[in-house]
Amino acid sequence: MADGRVERGNQTRRTVLERTMAVASVDGLERLSLGKIATDLGLSKSGVFALFGSKEDLQLATVRAAVDVFVERVVRPVRAEPAGTAKVWLVCERWLDYSLRRIFPGGCFFYGVSAEFDARPGPVRDEIAKARSAWTRYVEGALDEARLAGAFRDGVDAQDVPQLAFEIIALMEMANAHSVLFSDPTAYARAGRGILDRLRAVAAVPDELPQRPPDFDYAV
Amino acid sequence: MADGRVERGNQTRRTVLERTMAVASVDGLERLSLGKIATDLGLSKSGVFALFGSKEDLQLATVRAAVDVFVERVVRPVRAEPAGTAKVWLVCERWLDYSLRRIFPGGCFFYGVSAEFDARPGPVRDEIAKARSAWTRYVEGALDEARLAGAFRDGVDAQDVPQLAFEIIALMEMANAHSVLFSDPTAYARAGRGILDRLRAVAAVPDELPQRPPDFDYAV
Repeated sequence: MADGRVERGNQTRRTVLERTMAVASVDGLERLSLGKIATDLGLSKSGVFALFGSKEDLQLATVRAAVDVFVERVVRPVRAEPAGTAKVWLVCERWLDYSLRRIFPGGCFFYGVSAEFDARPGPVRDEIAKARSAWTRYVEGALDEARLAGAFRDGVDAQDVPQLAFEIIALMEMANAHSVLFSDPTAYARAGRGILDRLRAVAAVPDELPQRPPDFDYAV
Repeated sequence: MADGRVERGNQTRRTVLERTMAVASVDGLERLSLGKIATDLGLSKSGVFALFGSKEDLQLATVRAAVDVFVERVVRPVRAEPAGTAKVWLVCERWLDYSLRRIFPGGCFFYGVSAEFDARPGPVRDEIAKARSAWTRYVEGALDEARLAGAFRDGVDAQDVPQLAFEIIALMEMANAHSVLFSDPTAYARAGRGILDRLRAVAAVPDELPQRPPDFDYAV
């Protein structure tokens, strides 16, 4: 009986967070409303309030749930790949695919909510900044593993890694921003081309990377 | 007498738009309120309503006013420079300075409002998209003028210009986004380094470009 209640609670939690992630990716986290979400989903308001407590709790839970989706979609599929520039490219390709396929209807979840909360100090902004830092560290880590595996040409060293990560992430985010605002999928091919150029410039064996990005010609 | 009223109206309009640009760069355009702005500025509500009509009119006027500030700050100072990669770098340096100095308190005005309105079709989104397109065309135009002036090395042609513009703008926007979220000014030096690398790679005379970006070490 107690187990059944816990399971129902978990299920409701998942249902609510699926909804809030989708809504927040389009409209932002500030306009989330526990009452409206409960009504829209046909759930008991008291049940939803009992699960999340406050709007800020809901916002924080939504950011954490989006991190899980992101990890599952972008990071996990390449986990078993051997370290190298090809692995870095694969994770970038996963990222572009995650944005392009609108896993969140508003594009990359973190793009919109970062712009929304960047100037509003507090736990929600901190959680978003934590997620973005973790992603930057992941890309830097993948590049550094490539370096340690001997995948970089002579003259490229550990100091070049943060710069390279910055440039690669900039290209991905630009593709997302451009595609969402202009409904223009060509930005993904541009970002892919730029990332491959950057990786080829540092690779010991550039031919291990594709000559060009995929067409990304599936509809936005 | 009529002239005095027109002048007072223009002055009120400028005062209101100074305020709405600042507020919108931090909190977004959706939370603007004509009534609240009038109260905050000690202006008559009926006067402010007569000048702007609707919230959407105010949002559109705010975007257009921000375009004027942007042009004045970023584009106009380099207008008389001779075409070339050095001119492209100068305009990028102006852009980084515009973001870093918080000409708008929330950083680049267009970054925040793009993320806010990208998924909300309508005149405000169209006006934001128009402003961003104009900026992209400006950067592409400056690069193409450089090309026509013979400033690019052999093998770089007109087809490379949109890719180069995309990459340069991506680096600038990343610096802005990173600096606003993390209060971290090092992102400007990273963006500057990346942009100079891109420009040097296409320049006929790379030495006409600075070896490295300025320190951008003034406080954020």
